[in-house]
Amino acid sequence: MPHKQVVIIGGGFGGLTAAQSVHDADVVLIDRTNHHLFQPLLYQVATSALSPGDIAWPLRTIFRRHPHVRVVMDEVLSIDRAARLIRLRDSRPIGFDVLIVAPGSRHSYFGHDAWEESAPGLKTLADAVYLREKMLLAFEEAERRRMAIGTGERLTFVIVGGGPTGVELAGSLAEIGRKAMGPDFPNLRLNDLAILLVEGGSRVLPGFSPDLSAKAAAALKRKGVTIKLNSLVSEIRADGLMIGSEFVRSTHIIWAAGNRASPLLTSLGLPQDGSGRIKVQPDLTIPEDPWIFIIGDAAHCADPDGNPLPGIAPVAVQQGRYVARLIREETAPDQRRPFVYADQGMLATIGRAQAVAQIGLLRLSGLSAWLLWCVVHVFLLIEFRSRVRVMSEWVWYYLTFKPGARIIYMKTRQAGEESERRRRASRGLTRKTDVVPTEKIEKQAM
Amino acid sequence: MPHKQVVIIGGGFGGLTAAQSVHDADVVLIDRTNHHLFQPLLYQVATSALSPGDIAWPLRTIFRRHPHVRVVMDEVLSIDRAARLIRLRDSRPIGFDVLIVAPGSRHSYFGHDAWEESAPGLKTLADAVYLREKMLLAFEEAERRRMAIGTGERLTFVIVGGGPTGVELAGSLAEIGRKAMGPDFPNLRLNDLAILLVEGGSRVLPGFSPDLSAKAAAALKRKGVTIKLNSLVSEIRADGLMIGSEFVRSTHIIWAAGNRASPLLTSLGLPQDGSGRIKVQPDLTIPEDPWIFIIGDAAHCADPDGNPLPGIAPVAVQQGRYVARLIREETAPDQRRPFVYADQGMLATIGRAQAVAQIGLLRLSGLSAWLLWCVVHVFLLIEFRSRVRVMSEWVWYYLTFKPGARIIYMKTRQAGEESERRRRASRGLTRKTDVVPTEKIEKQAM
Repeated sequence: MPHKQVVIIGGGFGGLTAAQSVHDADVVLIDRTNHHLFQPLLYQVATSALSPGDIAWPLRTIFRRHPHVRVVMDEVLSIDRAARLIRLRDSRPIGFDVLIVAPGSRHSYFGHDAWEESAPGLKTLADAVYLREKMLLAFEEAERRRMAIGTGERLTFVIVGGGPTGVELAGSLAEIGRKAMGPDFPNLRLNDLAILLVEGGSRVLPGFSPDLSAKAAAALKRKGVTIKLNSLVSEIRADGLMIGSEFVRSTHIIWAAGNRASPLLTSLGLPQDGSGRIKVQPDLTIPEDPWIFIIGDAAHCADPDGNPLPGIAPVAVQQGRYVARLIREETAPDQRRPFVYADQGMLATIGRAQAVAQIGLLRLSGLSAWLLWCVVHVFLLIEFRSRVRVMSEWVWYYLTFKPGARIIYMKTRQAGEESERRRRASRGLTRKTDVVPTEKIEKQAM
Repeated sequence: MPHKQVVIIGGGFGGLTAAQSVHDADVVLIDRTNHHLFQPLLYQVATSALSPGDIAWPLRTIFRRHPHVRVVMDEVLSIDRAARLIRLRDSRPIGFDVLIVAPGSRHSYFGHDAWEESAPGLKTLADAVYLREKMLLAFEEAERRRMAIGTGERLTFVIVGGGPTGVELAGSLAEIGRKAMGPDFPNLRLNDLAILLVEGGSRVLPGFSPDLSAKAAAALKRKGVTIKLNSLVSEIRADGLMIGSEFVRSTHIIWAAGNRASPLLTSLGLPQDGSGRIKVQPDLTIPEDPWIFIIGDAAHCADPDGNPLPGIAPVAVQQGRYVARLIREETAPDQRRPFVYADQGMLATIGRAQAVAQIGLLRLSGLSAWLLWCVVHVFLLIEFRSRVRVMSEWVWYYLTFKPGARIIYMKTRQAGEESERRRRASRGLTRKTDVVPTEKIEKQAM
């Protein structure tokens, strides 16, 4: 009897777990990138505390010893349910007996997609490296401007969205800006740097208990973050944004609000919720097809109270395992127990030695929560080598306040013909060698 | 008495050493990047064995505790000897009492600058990340092609230049291609990959003794590298290159031949040698000005036999120290002893457990030379944290053959509007999100 072919779309937490847990079948794992990304630590790459290679692992290497798992680096364009195959950008279509759709989510700009250009999000390593470089260059230019003309315009960073991503970014940015970068830029003063966290609701970390929200907000304020609650962004322009009716000048806006499931899902032709997620059956399948599963951020899966499960890693991991078991045991649809999420709690960090943790009835904050956060995240990293590297980076940073990845290298200042030629290089990879500084500096005539 | 102002152009080995060794003066250190780059290990970033952050350190952090050293990230456009100042791209001109010119060198295309587009060099982190990404993507596409149509076109990498850089690149590429990547790409066969090292002279590593050259060549051949000696490149095109009268098809040509000193030097208006270096006095100054020094790759400094010293790190480091001492002691020109280079030998590695070392009369090859190479390079790294990271990466690689930095992230496959918009983002940093695969794959119509 031929092996069934299990196709998995997405190498994130859900897809990876499923691929690791399915046996006795041919598995094809497809991802747009060549790696599994540990997203919870992505903000640390964006703020130069970690390097990309510390939190990402090539999928091929993860499955090196699993000959039944084939890895394909490509983009899935559509899912053809009738023909039971998926169409890809650069490869032939791939047929499936079982399909697991785990493409994850992006940020939602609530209908204002044009804002993305001025307010990029943080979902991929490319995003993180881009933001890091932008941040480092902004400090360099602010320093140059102060040296050149003696005064400076305030460097304002705005983070939109007070959930875990926004809180972690704001806290990390404030810390690195003031404590780690400060000593390196002798001409900058503390109040040259402003960090603003904008949240539409009445508290940050709305998914946590109110007292932990309050503790997180207090910790952020102590680090120098200004929090604007009950504030909605009404417009984003190249030079700043409108928060309600107030204009805030900034060329460093990071979008960390809203979730929108992958556009790939529309090809399934099924009802989607407000965030684009597909409502799945209790066994995580789509209606009418007991062997097409949707898991992770892309699935609208109701908890016992009827609320959708949050788009966090432990949910995707548990769903991946659940689905893999159904496949291994070839459980008939009428024999399946519904998926039940075992709440493992939530963690969010604000910065060095500051975090909040909520696990069942347990509430932690401060140093103990931060240590728990560190331990959990280090052990969730999937490679021993990465655990060592990340742990050592954190220990180093804790002791020295020197973030480990503050290297600007995409922007190389090359004058004249050489960079012109590169600028026009249209063959193959385009290299980014002629980056324009985002903040203009008055040039002194000589 | 006011402190004299010492301006140092370039944060490489020469400039960095000088900046660290000058006391009792105001030092301004200018570099186009924000970091000191450990160039001997750059080829390992290009072949994905190390991450950028492992071999580069922000200059500001290096001098954090030296308040008399000011770091400026900018490009020097010209040197005005008469007015004793330097002109920069984004900052005001900076005056100097003492000037140390240490801008390093680039590759030389021997008059064929147009070749650079198809055959990039390896001098900066941006170069290395670009080459790494290109290499990883090439493997991915070759795999896809084999999967799609069953046969493949050979993936040929050509490295031009048989000196240490070329040899190290070729050896590393061969190793990573065959041993580390092989298991990850089940559809690729060993002879899908061809690595060609092209050298104009009669042996590789011409600076080493002939027997070590022979050992290095033998080691390269055992790793699967094809060496072409006495071969000159006569033409480079988008699809390949002409070696003599033979055409070799390749879209992966790396240029590691020839050295050309920084074009900045022409503004000094002094005689330059064939590589653009400036001939310096025995005390490393330019004629007519006892307080303008040129060190490192940019200086043509004769050894006792009249030959110019090689452009290697130990030369630049010793010159940096020598010059700093003259400045510290304010030695009058007629009191200065000439600079004498203390030959510390040369090392070159071919791959895992394979290297050659030549120190005075000592000749080593194989595993012992490789261990020496590792130890020397780890201890030359300037930060303890980096030593730990690089050492751990090498140990990991030695044990597992899994290079630590095989992450493709600049190329994110995002369809439709989103990537179009980013492609047109002309404000601020341009993000590289729409990389075109360098090797075309036949698309199968469905």
